[in-house]
Amino acid sequence: MSTIIKGIAASAGIAIAKSFRLEHPDLTVEKRTITNKDEEISRFDAAVATSKQELEVIKDRANDELGEDKAAIFAAHLLVLSDPELLNPIKEKITSENVNAEFALQEVASMFISMFESMDNEYMKERAADIRDVTKRVLSHLLGIIISNPSMISEEVIIIAEDLTPSDTAQLNRNYVKGFTTDIGGRTSHSAIMARSMEIPAVVGTKSVTSDIENGVIVIVDGLDGNVIVNPTDDVLAQYREKKEQYEAQKAEWAKLKNEKTVSSDNQHIELAANIGTPEDVKGVLENGGEGVGLYRTEFLYMGRDQLPTEEEQFEAYKTVLEHMEGKPVVVRTLDIGGDKELPYLNLPKEMNPFLGFRAIRLCLEEQDIFRTQLRALLRASTYGNLKIMFPMIATLNEFREAKTILEEEKQKLIANGISVSDSIELGIMVEIPSTAILADQFAKEVDFFSIGTNDLIQYTMAADRMNERVSYLYQPYSPSILRLVSMVIDAAHKEGKWAGMCGEMAGDPIAIPILLGLGLDEFSMSATSILPARSQIKKLSKAEIAGYKEKILSMSTTEEVVEFVNANLMK
Amino acid sequence: MSTIIKGIAASAGIAIAKSFRLEHPDLTVEKRTITNKDEEISRFDAAVATSKQELEVIKDRANDELGEDKAAIFAAHLLVLSDPELLNPIKEKITSENVNAEFALQEVASMFISMFESMDNEYMKERAADIRDVTKRVLSHLLGIIISNPSMISEEVIIIAEDLTPSDTAQLNRNYVKGFTTDIGGRTSHSAIMARSMEIPAVVGTKSVTSDIENGVIVIVDGLDGNVIVNPTDDVLAQYREKKEQYEAQKAEWAKLKNEKTVSSDNQHIELAANIGTPEDVKGVLENGGEGVGLYRTEFLYMGRDQLPTEEEQFEAYKTVLEHMEGKPVVVRTLDIGGDKELPYLNLPKEMNPFLGFRAIRLCLEEQDIFRTQLRALLRASTYGNLKIMFPMIATLNEFREAKTILEEEKQKLIANGISVSDSIELGIMVEIPSTAILADQFAKEVDFFSIGTNDLIQYTMAADRMNERVSYLYQPYSPSILRLVSMVIDAAHKEGKWAGMCGEMAGDPIAIPILLGLGLDEFSMSATSILPARSQIKKLSKAEIAGYKEKILSMSTTEEVVEFVNANLMK
Repeated sequence: MSTIIKGIAASAGIAIAKSFRLEHPDLTVEKRTITNKDEEISRFDAAVATSKQELEVIKDRANDELGEDKAAIFAAHLLVLSDPELLNPIKEKITSENVNAEFALQEVASMFISMFESMDNEYMKERAADIRDVTKRVLSHLLGIIISNPSMISEEVIIIAEDLTPSDTAQLNRNYVKGFTTDIGGRTSHSAIMARSMEIPAVVGTKSVTSDIENGVIVIVDGLDGNVIVNPTDDVLAQYREKKEQYEAQKAEWAKLKNEKTVSSDNQHIELAANIGTPEDVKGVLENGGEGVGLYRTEFLYMGRDQLPTEEEQFEAYKTVLEHMEGKPVVVRTLDIGGDKELPYLNLPKEMNPFLGFRAIRLCLEEQDIFRTQLRALLRASTYGNLKIMFPMIATLNEFREAKTILEEEKQKLIANGISVSDSIELGIMVEIPSTAILADQFAKEVDFFSIGTNDLIQYTMAADRMNERVSYLYQPYSPSILRLVSMVIDAAHKEGKWAGMCGEMAGDPIAIPILLGLGLDEFSMSATSILPARSQIKKLSKAEIAGYKEKILSMSTTEEVVEFVNANLMK
Repeated sequence: MSTIIKGIAASAGIAIAKSFRLEHPDLTVEKRTITNKDEEISRFDAAVATSKQELEVIKDRANDELGEDKAAIFAAHLLVLSDPELLNPIKEKITSENVNAEFALQEVASMFISMFESMDNEYMKERAADIRDVTKRVLSHLLGIIISNPSMISEEVIIIAEDLTPSDTAQLNRNYVKGFTTDIGGRTSHSAIMARSMEIPAVVGTKSVTSDIENGVIVIVDGLDGNVIVNPTDDVLAQYREKKEQYEAQKAEWAKLKNEKTVSSDNQHIELAANIGTPEDVKGVLENGGEGVGLYRTEFLYMGRDQLPTEEEQFEAYKTVLEHMEGKPVVVRTLDIGGDKELPYLNLPKEMNPFLGFRAIRLCLEEQDIFRTQLRALLRASTYGNLKIMFPMIATLNEFREAKTILEEEKQKLIANGISVSDSIELGIMVEIPSTAILADQFAKEVDFFSIGTNDLIQYTMAADRMNERVSYLYQPYSPSILRLVSMVIDAAHKEGKWAGMCGEMAGDPIAIPILLGLGLDEFSMSATSILPARSQIKKLSKAEIAGYKEKILSMSTTEEVVEFVNANLMK
């Protein structure tokens, strides 16, 4: 009989193959007193050197198979192994305490790992993961234990593991590894992101695959619905083979749309853009047929460092994105820091309710040096492409006016210094605070465009922290109240001849897409990988027909009513 | 030359008199080794007994001059002095460590004080203040030091103090003490609350009155604007005498309105109700001419205890309020706990953003035992007056429907058991979440009334924690976005023949009152002491005339525009 294990759908698609348990060997370390310090240090240096050679090989392979930005993880590992701040304390421990290299390595690495993990900052937590991964590799060489080498797999398999380290994932050969499933992790964990970029179906966070699945049994990984089926019956197998074929046919159809414009069945053009975080993400935008960048989150430039990025560093990043997008629109959001996104070097005070606190434009209007530096970098980059600038967390018209004045001042100063600045930069705002959506008619007279940030807009409108499990049921994108706000914003923009986009998760959501099309949304900005499915969906929908349901949908009273109506009438 | 010291206006009115510095003597304690334990314990018992006698006298005096609820503070002090959990450890310390009573008292008391203060709970912090106050009294008797005795004052004075303890305030003789001013404290500190109930002008939180003001100089306390003027010139004195006369004339005029209905100049009736926290507050509501209770916050029944209140305790409280209000409407809000209001015995998890968390109706729908107990108590009390029940933090219609179903179930069970329940209980909701205001037309079909909770509504609509100083500039009650939401709620109610009230601070605010009158608000619920001034203000305003400005006000773009318009056109 088939067994079904529920998990989190981390990478779309269906995979069917035999299970392959990827086990991490026991690297338990014992403390020993050593007699020859020099010999022990040589042993340690040799293990580091071998690890580096291995990493170079894995890095090149990742570069070829996964692209430069993913290979960067291994460049980071190599950096860790060249960092005297890690290596010297280990050697000192060996000599001063007469302990074996394994023990010294583990002690020092643990100290760094717990330090980085306690930092309550995503980037620092990733550094902790890097050190953990590298430590395992060096330890294995010291202990003479061969660690699992997924690159040796030579038949079609589905990997079963507690978790996959970045180096595990990078060694997976796409020809043989058809899918994977893990005990831990979520949609945004490293292995999940890797799986999506490798286009391998994956289900993570199952809690139990390593205890429930033996080696060599038939397993189905359903990365669409987040299910893992073990020992499927013939019926189930046939059913999933059909589901797999359907999905692949659909993918092939999507691929054909890469160079097409996005038009509804009644020939209305919609712009499908992508959300990006770094210049490296542009490649994925173009490969997935993105018509622009609808949200460039500039925070990443400021994170994982110990000081602010210079104007020059920022200029280079913005210029790169604008050039690579070749004249397609690029909406850059100015710094949105604070709330759950902290910058240790700014020393911001702890807040009782950070989501309702001192962040984004509120901080930029106070810390004007930071803001002006970013604006200068943007203005200087503006001549390299089609730049639009957007301010986050605007709550009042006065905040917008103040930010606009500052931008104008910096522009005039640059021009006075003979630096050329584009004179067609559109200036818009994120609509993510209820007040701003409610007053959209007033804002529309002064801004060039709106981009609705649904992640925040929904949590403020429902007064529910979306990260808080006990109230996450109130995070309701299809609530008629949210749809009314979205509709107000779009109507207000159109009345003044402006455009309205959306850059929250809702913009790429198959249930929301028909509704948003009917409400007249001009631009949808989403993860790059959602663009082709969205284009395909919109092609089948008549904008005019759905617009006819607008009043009906907006006068519904609950989320449930809306979803039922969309499923019954608008999913094609 | 006059000196002006700025502070916080804590109690309205103008007082002019000579300064009287209320100094707290040095009660520094030294540790001594004692030889006769029994003698030391007798000394301690005697000091406790004397303190109790004193407290009985002060309590009676407070009872006569300030009312039963204020005298309760001294009942609490008496309880502290009878608490074996405090007294026994002190005596044990004396005997086991051979230390003097003063030292043992101070050590044990400090431990309790810091324990209660660390509890991050207003009620517990007050218990810490009680223990501190009582400790001083007992210490003074042990040390043979006479502590200040404000009841001895026999000429007209203004008290200058670092802070006033509850026992200080209770001893103030209204015939001689014309006003007071302190270095520390805020509008909601004990001494400020006492000053308002005694109707003595007070300015608190000046930071410097004790260092800037000597004994015996002329001082003006302006409790209207929060200023303290030292050594006023003749001109300034004359000016403040006039301000004082005007204020007193106004108060006399207000007092005449006590038994009048609230009607606008064009003869439209408006209901002015009061917000209360305990049955004792009803007296103040009636004395100030309240036409009902617009918000009975039931949280206080649950706070400052170590377990939930029983159904019987709650029944008694609700019955008392309903009976004393003699058929006037009483809107009881069901438990609004969570967020900044914690109940230690419920063991709620710490949240990252408590204002967007698991609180109020969200908690009640999950912890149904707590909710059902409260509803039964309310239903049983319903036959004793004009009860209306209101659910807090409703975000979706499904939450309201679920809460209503639970209420209906409890009602049917009571009826089946032969217990009589009123069949005319109106059932309403707080509108304090943007989603609910936006969907008010849908809610209006199912609820009997709305009460707009502006404190929360504003902070969610502006995405700004009103307790966070760095973003408190965004707490803008007169923002056109807030006014639009308020207007939507009122219009939605009227369209379905329902009524709309308001129970946030905005309802008693002189700038908001004309706007709200024009938007058609039916009921204004505020602090009892704001009712007569509000009634006086409304008498001078024409509802129809202001209603004519509604579209104009709602199409303004900033708070500043609104305030300017109101000041220029609607303040009479």
